[in-house]
Amino acid sequence: MNDKLLVVGSVAYDCIETPADSADFILGGSASYAALAASYFAPTMISAVVGNDFKDSDIKRLTARAIDLSDVRFDSSKPTFFWRGKYHKNFNSRETLDVRLNAYENFVPQLGKDAQGAKYVLLGNISPEIQAATLDLVKAPQYVILDTMDLWITTAAESLNNLIKRCDLLIVNDSEAKLLAGTQNIICAGNELLKSGAKTVVIKAGEFGAMLFHCEGFFVVPAYPITSLHDPTGAGDSFAGALAGYIAGAGKVDFETIKNGMLAGAATASMTVESFSCYKLEQYGIDEINRRREFIKNISKI
Amino acid sequence: MNDKLLVVGSVAYDCIETPADSADFILGGSASYAALAASYFAPTMISAVVGNDFKDSDIKRLTARAIDLSDVRFDSSKPTFFWRGKYHKNFNSRETLDVRLNAYENFVPQLGKDAQGAKYVLLGNISPEIQAATLDLVKAPQYVILDTMDLWITTAAESLNNLIKRCDLLIVNDSEAKLLAGTQNIICAGNELLKSGAKTVVIKAGEFGAMLFHCEGFFVVPAYPITSLHDPTGAGDSFAGALAGYIAGAGKVDFETIKNGMLAGAATASMTVESFSCYKLEQYGIDEINRRREFIKNISKI
Repeated sequence: MNDKLLVVGSVAYDCIETPADSADFILGGSASYAALAASYFAPTMISAVVGNDFKDSDIKRLTARAIDLSDVRFDSSKPTFFWRGKYHKNFNSRETLDVRLNAYENFVPQLGKDAQGAKYVLLGNISPEIQAATLDLVKAPQYVILDTMDLWITTAAESLNNLIKRCDLLIVNDSEAKLLAGTQNIICAGNELLKSGAKTVVIKAGEFGAMLFHCEGFFVVPAYPITSLHDPTGAGDSFAGALAGYIAGAGKVDFETIKNGMLAGAATASMTVESFSCYKLEQYGIDEINRRREFIKNISKI
Repeated sequence: MNDKLLVVGSVAYDCIETPADSADFILGGSASYAALAASYFAPTMISAVVGNDFKDSDIKRLTARAIDLSDVRFDSSKPTFFWRGKYHKNFNSRETLDVRLNAYENFVPQLGKDAQGAKYVLLGNISPEIQAATLDLVKAPQYVILDTMDLWITTAAESLNNLIKRCDLLIVNDSEAKLLAGTQNIICAGNELLKSGAKTVVIKAGEFGAMLFHCEGFFVVPAYPITSLHDPTGAGDSFAGALAGYIAGAGKVDFETIKNGMLAGAATASMTVESFSCYKLEQYGIDEINRRREFIKNISKI
């Protein structure tokens, strides 16, 4: 057993168009965003697959943050998972223009000994089948965090519901929570998810922060007030990564630790969205994360 | 001069249909909701007009809260302002089925000596023309709070913008703030409103609480987590009323007082929406308001 955080999810290349800018073949995917965020708080490993077009410079970006890539498979027969998306005017909505599973098509997760012994696991956003198959390989996970999205709620409800019961903390955004719980009241949605088998629930609400539904109480972390939204892609993955990293780094899973993990998540996600990929986050690093954590801590103080 | 709060706005009869219930000819209108909320924090006066159908029992509801009705005109030739509305499934949207100005058609505000000397004024939601005409009658207002809605932003922009410059605190909800400021980022919207002439801005965001944009800093108050939404009508008016009442009651207008006023607003609004009209608020009163204030204070504590 080890105190590292194992991050499961996609490593991808994204082509993104926003109202103000565009970028091609930038490092994306839930595991990349989550692991880069987590790396500021705990030693982090990724389980994923990349293809024959994966760039050395992107390997270096991950290893520069001391992320352990021993469980990232290399598929020489196919390109890396690819996503092309466009944000509409004012970031009101986003459209997937192209998505290609590529290396993920027949991906069967395998874990080395180190990853098998991980105490802390973040099942970042990817199909519940891959999430479950990877979790099966971890021998004695102590705390499992599950992130998902509306696609899996509507297309893989049964697998997802089974997986939720195996996890310790479920992360969804506000519209996903309402969809999954079948109610439009966000507080009822959180409570319903607890009743239906989730042990602890975090509901992300973008510019309004995030809510924690925990057996010991209710908690709200406000969002860091950003004025320079550049690309919202990966905000949720970064939030989940920093939260999971904080918990693994603290080696504790109590109510107070989760609250502080959400603070870390809110600070980190606010930096992710200020650039494409994680460029701003990597550039500014822990000092700015800490400054934003302190700022957020004081926003609601009265 | 006196320390009373003068509440300007509508006194109305509402017929409301929600997904679960309906009610006919219940006391509504921005001034009713705001004054009932404010009455828990400061002596409150209303400037409004009612018609020939206004019930003694509703006068008693207001005077039971010691609300001064000397500036409520009685128009014997017309009925009270009337609104019929319907909330759709899950309270996702609401529709106005009928609206009749009635007594407000040719209403010219007049104020008695006491109201003319009010230090604190809440211009509750009604046309900017009536708001401005009433404010003109107050001799030396010390702190003026302005609440408005999307209708006036789109149909009376010039009057509204002129009025904003005469006020000390502007209250709008998140979509109104974005509409008024012409940006989809809520933080940018708040900052833009400050730049364009508002001295202080509060943006209400329903289940996500409210944000304060003040020259001394930024503040977020979370919403009280309610699970029994019965009728959202008047939530914003109650929030504004309690905030204004708190400020008048404290006799101070500094940053800390406004923060505490928002706490009072959040607690009070959460009670308003648990029943039609203000029945729950009037039933539970200050003890429950205080309990919810304490609860909200601790929600974000870390």
